[in-house]
Amino acid sequence: MKIFSAEYLTKTGIELFVSCGTPMEDAKLVTEELVESSLMGIDSHGVIRFIEYSNHLLCGKIRAGADINIIRETDNTALVECGMNFGIVSALKMVEIAYNKAISHNISCIISKHCYHVGRLGAYVQKLAERGLFAFAVVNSSKHGHWVSPWGGKNGRLATNPLAYAFPTKGNPVVFDTSTSMISEGKIRLSLHKGEDLPEGYVLDANGNPTKSPKAFYGPPKGTILPFGGESGYKGFGLSVLVELLGSTLAGVEITPDGKDDDYVNGLCIIAINPGAFGDFERFRNIADDLCNYITSANTAPGFSEVVMPGAYDFRMKQKRLKEGIPVADDTWNSIINLKEKFNIQV
Amino acid sequence: MKIFSAEYLTKTGIELFVSCGTPMEDAKLVTEELVESSLMGIDSHGVIRFIEYSNHLLCGKIRAGADINIIRETDNTALVECGMNFGIVSALKMVEIAYNKAISHNISCIISKHCYHVGRLGAYVQKLAERGLFAFAVVNSSKHGHWVSPWGGKNGRLATNPLAYAFPTKGNPVVFDTSTSMISEGKIRLSLHKGEDLPEGYVLDANGNPTKSPKAFYGPPKGTILPFGGESGYKGFGLSVLVELLGSTLAGVEITPDGKDDDYVNGLCIIAINPGAFGDFERFRNIADDLCNYITSANTAPGFSEVVMPGAYDFRMKQKRLKEGIPVADDTWNSIINLKEKFNIQV
Repeated sequence: MKIFSAEYLTKTGIELFVSCGTPMEDAKLVTEELVESSLMGIDSHGVIRFIEYSNHLLCGKIRAGADINIIRETDNTALVECGMNFGIVSALKMVEIAYNKAISHNISCIISKHCYHVGRLGAYVQKLAERGLFAFAVVNSSKHGHWVSPWGGKNGRLATNPLAYAFPTKGNPVVFDTSTSMISEGKIRLSLHKGEDLPEGYVLDANGNPTKSPKAFYGPPKGTILPFGGESGYKGFGLSVLVELLGSTLAGVEITPDGKDDDYVNGLCIIAINPGAFGDFERFRNIADDLCNYITSANTAPGFSEVVMPGAYDFRMKQKRLKEGIPVADDTWNSIINLKEKFNIQV
Repeated sequence: MKIFSAEYLTKTGIELFVSCGTPMEDAKLVTEELVESSLMGIDSHGVIRFIEYSNHLLCGKIRAGADINIIRETDNTALVECGMNFGIVSALKMVEIAYNKAISHNISCIISKHCYHVGRLGAYVQKLAERGLFAFAVVNSSKHGHWVSPWGGKNGRLATNPLAYAFPTKGNPVVFDTSTSMISEGKIRLSLHKGEDLPEGYVLDANGNPTKSPKAFYGPPKGTILPFGGESGYKGFGLSVLVELLGSTLAGVEITPDGKDDDYVNGLCIIAINPGAFGDFERFRNIADDLCNYITSANTAPGFSEVVMPGAYDFRMKQKRLKEGIPVADDTWNSIINLKEKFNIQV
């Protein structure tokens, strides 16, 4: 484990992405979002992605600099062709479209096509809430990410399909961002590498039987991740279907039986609502603050030291890591060094 | 347990509500929705409510015939003052507003004020999906319904706060409707009456310690219901906050410390999206069908006989109960008989 400043990691990421053919402006946007995720403690969507994104730039999966265009729109909706440019660049553009349409027409719904990995979903709803809007977003994945079984099934039919929302208060916005599955595939891989068992009730083996073994999960033949909810996993399943529907079906993206039409990674849908459509914005923000105070005024249950609103820990982690630096795992850093050497990057 | 036809129960309900001062047209609307819920197997929101609604009519909590008016609107949003008329009558009016605004302006968001109990939330998204729209809805409750603790807390700060969505296919729409808590208060009461323990991990006693005893839950002092999700109950908590925000905060409804401003039961928010804004509707419906087929094509896991989309069991139950009748518990029926005798109703 090594510790780096956000500034140093940002310089490194920009150099890397530019070396792989990314326009400077986009390299900055992408790197800043990844470093921000690391600052907030969402390491799975942070600087570890320098490696994967660089490799995908080199193999042509990410088409840096590709046009991102609205291909169909109304006053308050848009379908955005992302051309397999960076998902982060695409999503930030979609945030701007969602903002402008919600400000001028109260509520907007923006959906992507051919969008690469968008990173931390919460980032986009957070940006809208920081500008005074309520925002809700989902992101599904193409078939290669279908690790999650439907409720009662033993074959992968859905991705970990996160959903997120955020709303403004007088301080940091409330930001909620969660997957609809019991665990992410990335965390199972981590357990495999560490030789550790998984908790009970998270995954099935290829025969559909519960297992705690990451090896039994990966097979081959491979097993599946359960939808979120334990005995009530039909709830996580239902939410996951919502994500699939908004992120992809509504955009007219087909589920092909052979998985050939897989030229995307994420299907992103952002819904933004201007609270001003329903009343005075300052009053809304005051009531939102009162709601947070009312909820967090609950006395703590045994084993808990406080009650916090969704996202509060992430904002605290950001302050901590801005001071103390961002920890990066050794193997992640070694892979980044290899890439730096390959491109002769001196940061 | 007695079995009655939907027709008989409908006649009974209409007579009851009319006897309690409800205009005939509204009595029909309310009764048909309650019987429909019973037909679909959602007994907690079915004919059992004949009793509570009648009592609330008699004590003036429900103001039958009160005006339901839009008090603030734009092309695609509306705030609807429901005047404590029936929640079902109010919600059905909101469905019409949501439909018309989404058809003419692609996406709409409608929120209630002073709304009585809306019954089965899924009913409203289902109606919109049956008319070709995607719909999402939430419903919160006023303070008297705050049985649910926030994650890490031991005082009630939220209600069981359900959320629902539906989307059209070529057959019945997919309809998902779920609470964001581990269990409803109604089900705990049922266990109390039966003298049965609750499953582990559903509720806390007043000290915030896990308990399986309904008696320990009710106290006094009373305990709380946990947000949905077991070890990951912060997920259910986050979803519950979303429901609170959309159902109430966005409408400008304050959380008062003393609970005096409690002149509502439910805060309903409906968001409707016209898939036609993003592409051809028939194509959307075909892709939605393909998605359902793809998901339900998963082989079943041990212990399951099939994989079904959300809502499928409810539509099947409706067919079964239309044929075989609706079972009504003895004490429910006795209470209904008492009301019938009180008003000298001969059905």
